[in-house]
Amino acid sequence: MNKIEHIGIAVKSLETSNELFAKLFGKPYYKIEEVASEGVNTSFFQVGENKIELLEATKEDSPIAKFIERKGEGIHHIAFDVTDIEAEIKRLKGEGFIVLNEIPKKGADNKLVAFLHPKSTNGVLIELCQEIR
Amino acid sequence: MNKIEHIGIAVKSLETSNELFAKLFGKPYYKIEEVASEGVNTSFFQVGENKIELLEATKEDSPIAKFIERKGEGIHHIAFDVTDIEAEIKRLKGEGFIVLNEIPKKGADNKLVAFLHPKSTNGVLIELCQEIR
Repeated sequence: MNKIEHIGIAVKSLETSNELFAKLFGKPYYKIEEVASEGVNTSFFQVGENKIELLEATKEDSPIAKFIERKGEGIHHIAFDVTDIEAEIKRLKGEGFIVLNEIPKKGADNKLVAFLHPKSTNGVLIELCQEIR
Repeated sequence: MNKIEHIGIAVKSLETSNELFAKLFGKPYYKIEEVASEGVNTSFFQVGENKIELLEATKEDSPIAKFIERKGEGIHHIAFDVTDIEAEIKRLKGEGFIVLNEIPKKGADNKLVAFLHPKSTNGVLIELCQEIR
C-alpha cells in the first residue's frame, strides 16, 4: 500500500455536494466522470496528495443508491494506491482478508480496482487501486 | 485545508485491530496514545503522507462507544490539517457549516482540534486539526 489514493463519499446529489465541498475546501472539483458499469457519476477534489471522490447513483440498483438507502449519505470507502494489484490481492487473501474482486475490474480515474469485504476489515470498505499504464 | 491529516476508525478492541491493520498495511502501528478527556485509546499507522488512527473507547459513555453501539465498527471521521484553526473555524461558519467546537480543544497527537457537525457536511464527521507549536 503506497498511500491513500482517495476517500469515496456517497452523496444524493452531485450538484449540491459539489457546491458544499467546494466551500469546505475553498476550491472546486477538478473532474467529473461517469462510470456507467457501476451506475455512478463521480467528481474529484484534490487535497494534498489525496483525492476526495463524491459518488452519486445514476440508477436505482447502483451500490451507491443501496448504500444511501441503508446508511444515508457519508463515507463509502477508502482507496489505497498499490503498485501491483494482483500481487496485493494474493498477499491479502493469504492474510485472511475477503477479496470481493479476485480479478480486478476497471474503475473511475483510469484505475484497476478490487474491494475487500468490510466484514474482514473492521467495517471499512477498502478499495485497492492501481493506475492503468 | 492543507491535506488529510488522518482518518479515524472506531474499533472495539485496539489489540485485535492493531493486528488486523498491521496485516493490511504490511507494517505495525508506530504510536499508542490515550486521550483520557475523550475516553479513547488510540493507535497510529503511517500510510504515505497520511495517518490512520484507530480509536477504542475506554469508558461506556465515550463518543466512540456510542458510535459503535449505533453504527458498528468503521470509519468515524476524516481530519484535515489546517494552518490556523481559528481562522478556518470562522471561514467555515461563514460558509454555513455547523462547528461543534467554536473554541478548539486539545486532541491526540499534539493537536488543537474542532469538529464540524455531519448534518452540515453530507453525513461526514470532519475534524480540523492544527499542530500545537
